[in-house]
Amino acid sequence: MARTGRRPGNQDTREAILTAARKAFTERGFDKASIRQIATVAEVDPALVHHYFGSKDKLFLAAMQVPFDPGEVIPQVFAGGTDGVGERLVRTVLTVWDSPAGGAAIGIMRSVLSHDWSARMLREFVTSQILRRVIQHLDVDPKEAPLRTTLAASQLVGVMMVRYIVKVEPLTSTPREVLVSAIGPTIQRYLTGEVAGLDQMTDQ
Amino acid sequence: MARTGRRPGNQDTREAILTAARKAFTERGFDKASIRQIATVAEVDPALVHHYFGSKDKLFLAAMQVPFDPGEVIPQVFAGGTDGVGERLVRTVLTVWDSPAGGAAIGIMRSVLSHDWSARMLREFVTSQILRRVIQHLDVDPKEAPLRTTLAASQLVGVMMVRYIVKVEPLTSTPREVLVSAIGPTIQRYLTGEVAGLDQMTDQ
Repeated sequence: MARTGRRPGNQDTREAILTAARKAFTERGFDKASIRQIATVAEVDPALVHHYFGSKDKLFLAAMQVPFDPGEVIPQVFAGGTDGVGERLVRTVLTVWDSPAGGAAIGIMRSVLSHDWSARMLREFVTSQILRRVIQHLDVDPKEAPLRTTLAASQLVGVMMVRYIVKVEPLTSTPREVLVSAIGPTIQRYLTGEVAGLDQMTDQ
Repeated sequence: MARTGRRPGNQDTREAILTAARKAFTERGFDKASIRQIATVAEVDPALVHHYFGSKDKLFLAAMQVPFDPGEVIPQVFAGGTDGVGERLVRTVLTVWDSPAGGAAIGIMRSVLSHDWSARMLREFVTSQILRRVIQHLDVDPKEAPLRTTLAASQLVGVMMVRYIVKVEPLTSTPREVLVSAIGPTIQRYLTGEVAGLDQMTDQ
């Protein structure tokens, strides 16, 4: 069953690693999963996992088939400081989803709602790959940062749901830059502005 | 197989009507589906559909197992005018989802992502039962109202996704009233305030 022009052996090894990785990230979470343990389950040498995928972060992205690297994208969004970061974040997110690669992100969202394991994977992804990085760039009270970033995430996830999955008009056909202007200030406020109710949280 | 204390014949008739209704609403949309046609497919008299379910709106809610009636809830939210409607809308939505009945809403969301027919049903629900009613209460340029309401819907759907389905902390355990204070102003701005980008839409 060898496929011409491919290296089926290597493909099988990669798949075995990815399968073990999905299981580990789902069962143990991102932080507690280890490349060593994933290699053991996949019956390969840990060095081979590093060789194929690089870091644990990159292995996780490969396991989830995420079409972009938050480790590169998020620093770019924050490169210009927090001024206007709301608009830049909305533009970046919509650009990924409007692209052909966005189909993968939509596929992940679809599977999340039907499988609990996907919800766990997505939760680990959002927390370890997105929120943790965004928080590093925020110049706010560290106690407020987690809720601020999850509020921003809720707006971005909601646009994705309504625009790409449920497809409610006129949001689905609204030009990207209109949404950048309309939604950017919401993200900006959640991440950097006045958010009533936060003081109630951090006083707990 | 008669069940004690039930009227299986009536139950079967109700189920046949609901099955025909789901098919009709999915294939034709809410507006074009008719009780007469649904009754024909279910092989019952249209009067029986009215007898069991009342209006087409109520039949639709029953077919989707929606645990509340937007036709009652939305006028209540807007009863105090548009002042503070953002906070009242967030409070109402979170109260429904935090309640035992909220499980049904979450179930609908879960099925949406795995079945295209559910996405169509949810789209029809949001459009015909929610957005159309909210728009009636808004005191804004009618050309802007559809995008304003779908923007608000995107934020509310996103909170539901992150709080109840993906379950990202700290949003999942944040007290309801904190979220009312934090998210209310977003909904208020989308529905009644200054939204940059809207002029670009309506100039088209």
